[in-house]
Amino acid sequence: MKIALSLLLATTGLMAASLQEQAKEAGLKPIPAGKTELMQLIDNTENKITDAKIELGKKLYFDPRLSKSNLISCNTCHNLSEGGDDGVSAAIGHKWTANPHHLNSPTVYNAVFFNAQFWDGRDPDLEKQAQGPIQAHPEMAATKEHVEKTVNSMPQYVAEFQSAYGDDVKINFEKVTDTIALFERILVTPSAYDDFLNGNKDALTQAQKNGLKTFIDVGCASCHNGIALGGNMNVFNVTATYKHQNVGDFKGDTNAMVKVPTLRNITQTAPYYHNGQIWSLKEAIIEMGRVQLGADISDKQAASIEEFLKALDGEKPLLTLPILPASTSATPKPDMH
Amino acid sequence: MKIALSLLLATTGLMAASLQEQAKEAGLKPIPAGKTELMQLIDNTENKITDAKIELGKKLYFDPRLSKSNLISCNTCHNLSEGGDDGVSAAIGHKWTANPHHLNSPTVYNAVFFNAQFWDGRDPDLEKQAQGPIQAHPEMAATKEHVEKTVNSMPQYVAEFQSAYGDDVKINFEKVTDTIALFERILVTPSAYDDFLNGNKDALTQAQKNGLKTFIDVGCASCHNGIALGGNMNVFNVTATYKHQNVGDFKGDTNAMVKVPTLRNITQTAPYYHNGQIWSLKEAIIEMGRVQLGADISDKQAASIEEFLKALDGEKPLLTLPILPASTSATPKPDMH
Repeated sequence: MKIALSLLLATTGLMAASLQEQAKEAGLKPIPAGKTELMQLIDNTENKITDAKIELGKKLYFDPRLSKSNLISCNTCHNLSEGGDDGVSAAIGHKWTANPHHLNSPTVYNAVFFNAQFWDGRDPDLEKQAQGPIQAHPEMAATKEHVEKTVNSMPQYVAEFQSAYGDDVKINFEKVTDTIALFERILVTPSAYDDFLNGNKDALTQAQKNGLKTFIDVGCASCHNGIALGGNMNVFNVTATYKHQNVGDFKGDTNAMVKVPTLRNITQTAPYYHNGQIWSLKEAIIEMGRVQLGADISDKQAASIEEFLKALDGEKPLLTLPILPASTSATPKPDMH
Repeated sequence: MKIALSLLLATTGLMAASLQEQAKEAGLKPIPAGKTELMQLIDNTENKITDAKIELGKKLYFDPRLSKSNLISCNTCHNLSEGGDDGVSAAIGHKWTANPHHLNSPTVYNAVFFNAQFWDGRDPDLEKQAQGPIQAHPEMAATKEHVEKTVNSMPQYVAEFQSAYGDDVKINFEKVTDTIALFERILVTPSAYDDFLNGNKDALTQAQKNGLKTFIDVGCASCHNGIALGGNMNVFNVTATYKHQNVGDFKGDTNAMVKVPTLRNITQTAPYYHNGQIWSLKEAIIEMGRVQLGADISDKQAASIEEFLKALDGEKPLLTLPILPASTSATPKPDMH
């Protein structure tokens, strides 16, 4: 009996090891377990991460006064208490205006691992991305001047920029957005899946292991790969036959393609797709099989994949709620119009 | 020389002691320094504060899914990263609608010390107050049913309610709002001013002490008294001659009176007054003297009072950002309309 049990365990161990190999062959990569290795991946070589910059970036990320109305912050649509998004189909911005292309807010968690930002992948990194929504009219609707005046109007912000970057820092729009992006770079959420790929074969349940195998076998990893299980190529053809294509006027990139979104924390980021038209994860899985893979994913397979996806729910960084500097008489007043 | 110095110190000490006495005679009270004494003041005797309830209440306070749109939480208008308010003249709610009476969002910090809630003082405590904005149409625009369905749709919320209140807890609207209110009860911000009234005569600068004396001498404390320096009576006559009376249609309480707001953290809660029409604290001080006291407060006196008011900037509770439970298929979908 003892021998049989140890044989069984050895077999299970071998199977798990082989699944880890299979995952790596399919292009799946874990968030590194080592802090140094992780930092090398997420750091900005031209603007190194420091504690002072992170704390400042967090304040700016949560500061609604960067918006025209003084009511919308980065955290409004990329809510760190939720899945790093807003849970609605299309982002709602200034004056309650929905995104004109009916685009869904993507999660900011693990966005540092993407090769490109925005649904059409038009920006290369978080630094460039952060400049967009602040100025976009249906989002934060601010001007560069508004942001610069706002931040420079508060002595505490100025002092914190000086601590972070040196006394001769020029606090312009790009310095503000670069600092927000640095904060966003630390928003990574390691999960049981990473433990598994990093060598702990017991980190996943058997059902999750089965789901991972289905995920690979069906072909999901041909697009959802890399550390983020997405975020590194534009492959979804928005003009192809697709039952949800008629929502919004989004045209994708120059090839009419949409970026593959990350699957990390996917259980928390419904509704799905660039247009936020599907609320059920299982339905989203089956639909992607049909449209992208020409595969007829069965209900049972979809349930198995969904079980695996739960293992991508990660541990979010523990953040203290920032306390923002008080406005001064020089701080631009809110404008609701 | 030594004698002269000690005489001087003794005199200063006497003066400070006398100012503390004067403040107490004027009805000014500190936040108690002792934790037990403070808890007795802020606790709800019918629903005692516990760590489990606070953590749960914090989640609910930050959860935008309690609103019809899933985008507005208590923290949207009572932003704990700011002054516990939103920094705009009139609260902006569902569908970007301004408060129909053009009322300014009051701070939630130290609201536990008020004898009455809302600008007209119509509700007696935070528990009752919390029921209002969630259901108000231009605010969170939700129904009781929406809130109950939302919270009960997430197993983690249900488990946390059970941990907090026992396994047989019925999670209805009132239980949700009571729990939010419990969280709000701990949002107190002790300041240098409290240290001073609690006996540390060096806690205030000389300019702040002079300002406190001016504050009392001019008569400000006749309305702004108690622990919150406000919040315990309705005395501001909205229909009296008043240059800002024409904004909004707010009629005050049955005597056309508005509640006296707290002065704690007042440097962070512009714009001022129930209608949010004055942005400058100094101007607000002078105007209040004119309208409420019939006093002609000089620029110098106003500057002195303002200096004192800075001593009311308190230390906010250190909060970790809550991580909310994920929605399920049973969670009501957002409705933007």
